Amino acid sequence: MSALNQDYGTSLSWIAVDWGTSNLRVWAMDDNANILGSVESPLGMNAIAGDPKLSFEVVLVGLIDGWLTKDIVGLPVVICGMAGAKQGWLEAPYCDVPARPTDLAKGAVKPDVRDPRISVFILPGLCQRGDSDVMRGEETQLVGFMAAHPEFAGWVCLPGTHSKWARIADGKITAFRTYMSGEVFALLSQHSILRHSVDDGWDDAAFADAVRGACAQPTAFLHSLFGVRAGALVAPAGASVAPGASVLSGTVIGTEIADVLGLLQPGENIALIGAGKLASLYQAALAVHGHKATPQDGATITLSGLARAHATLVSTSKEN
Amino acid sequence: MSALNQDYGTSLSWIAVDWGTSNLRVWAMDDNANILGSVESPLGMNAIAGDPKLSFEVVLVGLIDGWLTKDIVGLPVVICGMAGAKQGWLEAPYCDVPARPTDLAKGAVKPDVRDPRISVFILPGLCQRGDSDVMRGEETQLVGFMAAHPEFAGWVCLPGTHSKWARIADGKITAFRTYMSGEVFALLSQHSILRHSVDDGWDDAAFADAVRGACAQPTAFLHSLFGVRAGALVAPAGASVAPGASVLSGTVIGTEIADVLGLLQPGENIALIGAGKLASLYQAALAVHGHKATPQDGATITLSGLARAHATLVSTSKEN
Repeated sequence: MSALNQDYGTSLSWIAVDWGTSNLRVWAMDDNANILGSVESPLGMNAIAGDPKLSFEVVLVGLIDGWLTKDIVGLPVVICGMAGAKQGWLEAPYCDVPARPTDLAKGAVKPDVRDPRISVFILPGLCQRGDSDVMRGEETQLVGFMAAHPEFAGWVCLPGTHSKWARIADGKITAFRTYMSGEVFALLSQHSILRHSVDDGWDDAAFADAVRGACAQPTAFLHSLFGVRAGALVAPAGASVAPGASVLSGTVIGTEIADVLGLLQPGENIALIGAGKLASLYQAALAVHGHKATPQDGATITLSGLARAHATLVSTSKEN
Repeated sequence: MSALNQDYGTSLSWIAVDWGTSNLRVWAMDDNANILGSVESPLGMNAIAGDPKLSFEVVLVGLIDGWLTKDIVGLPVVICGMAGAKQGWLEAPYCDVPARPTDLAKGAVKPDVRDPRISVFILPGLCQRGDSDVMRGEETQLVGFMAAHPEFAGWVCLPGTHSKWARIADGKITAFRTYMSGEVFALLSQHSILRHSVDDGWDDAAFADAVRGACAQPTAFLHSLFGVRAGALVAPAGASVAPGASVLSGTVIGTEIADVLGLLQPGENIALIGAGKLASLYQAALAVHGHKATPQDGATITLSGLARAHATLVSTSKEN
């Protein structure tokens, strides 16, 4: 999807950017939160940090130059994600939990830019002290989710290499937990002794059994892993063996979910943001425990979160 | 240590062998369980499986040929470890728990050998159905431990790449659990995002804190891991940060120990078999929970287990 040379004229009201580690996504927005156009690029934070000829402003203006008519001045560009990291465009210090969406918007930093046509706001990530944790980018998805579900109370799950679970109550993000599940699954299935037990085979029932097993022994993760291998070794000759990938995936995701379920308070709900295979696995694992959570599209929710931040920034600048 | 050309004459009563995946160790023994000599070799199971010119008998006889006078016939050679695996010399089917030391000895298999001077016994490993688990080699250490501590009741820990914990009661190995702690620590510290947080720095107090933390949140392993990184990111500027290796190691070992402590029954004890840095870490982690466990040398205990198996095999052959 590219809209590089599209001139939106006076409809163009602001620009939304989700700047990740390995890619970025940019939307041209009108005054009524309609998408006029969008563009994606592989020039995430890591690519820019690794190339002295690139800068965040050069990359951004290169993508949106065709949208910017000559007479535009100070068009708001609202960015979430790694552009605000220490190694990013300009560090946007973490906002502490508990945090309201407006706290996040007010924590935005403004890098100096050479191009007078844009005015850039970089949103902060969230941090939690005590039980140390950080996020950058997902907090904007949470803000988008809260805009669509203002009464929601409970835990929102964002599956990924590092899954995030955030507790939402009374219009605030009150706590969150990162789980290294995706990275641990990848390392174990590709580089540990369990790689001999993992192939393309898959069985939904074996996955569900492993999710149940992880909940029955929630402290036994490091032991349960070895069962992926031992299960095949102790099976009677000729017996069918559960596919290792299903068992390993169910053990990892199931252990993560068992920990969160232990924190769930009466009356709290669970919501799921994401798409594709991974979100479906989390949906299936939650269903094992009787929780119905339909995955909600992450990109739409990110854009909604950026729109809410933009609205706060506009009203704040009018107040001042 | 080499004693390849030593002639022990009629003192030589039997030969003990610990044949692992990546090396083997051989002892010349007299009738009173004294060590006459010993020899080590890197020709473990993997080296033999990878070289068509090698066989287990060729490797073994090559090491002990100098010990065997011409008139020796059928000298007992008692072997534990991977020589009994499916990919080993001859498969010695797993013995089920609960198992007595005599059950293990009676499960030994006898491969055909060309050299008439030796008579080879390969001891079986242990397996557990239900909560699937297997071991090969460590069961002989457990037998050696039980010979020295006949009244012991509780859990014996054998730290390693895959740590083993076995429950011993009434002269039987009743259950056991493998933990992939060593391999998980190595993968995380070398290949995950946590590698940026792990260097040569070490702090005993930070290790102990992480052990306590793992016990306070025993279901949170996949989340606690991320704290190794997040702890440094949320620390105030200028604050000292706990060395990542100590925190990661304490989290991994502490999670393993928290799971075992949850299984410990009143009156049960904990013992530790091993040596070096890793055994010291387990000793320190157990001390955090008030368990005093002095590491006992593994090689001595293996030899004691092989001696007990030899005694059973000799008395069984006299009975027959």
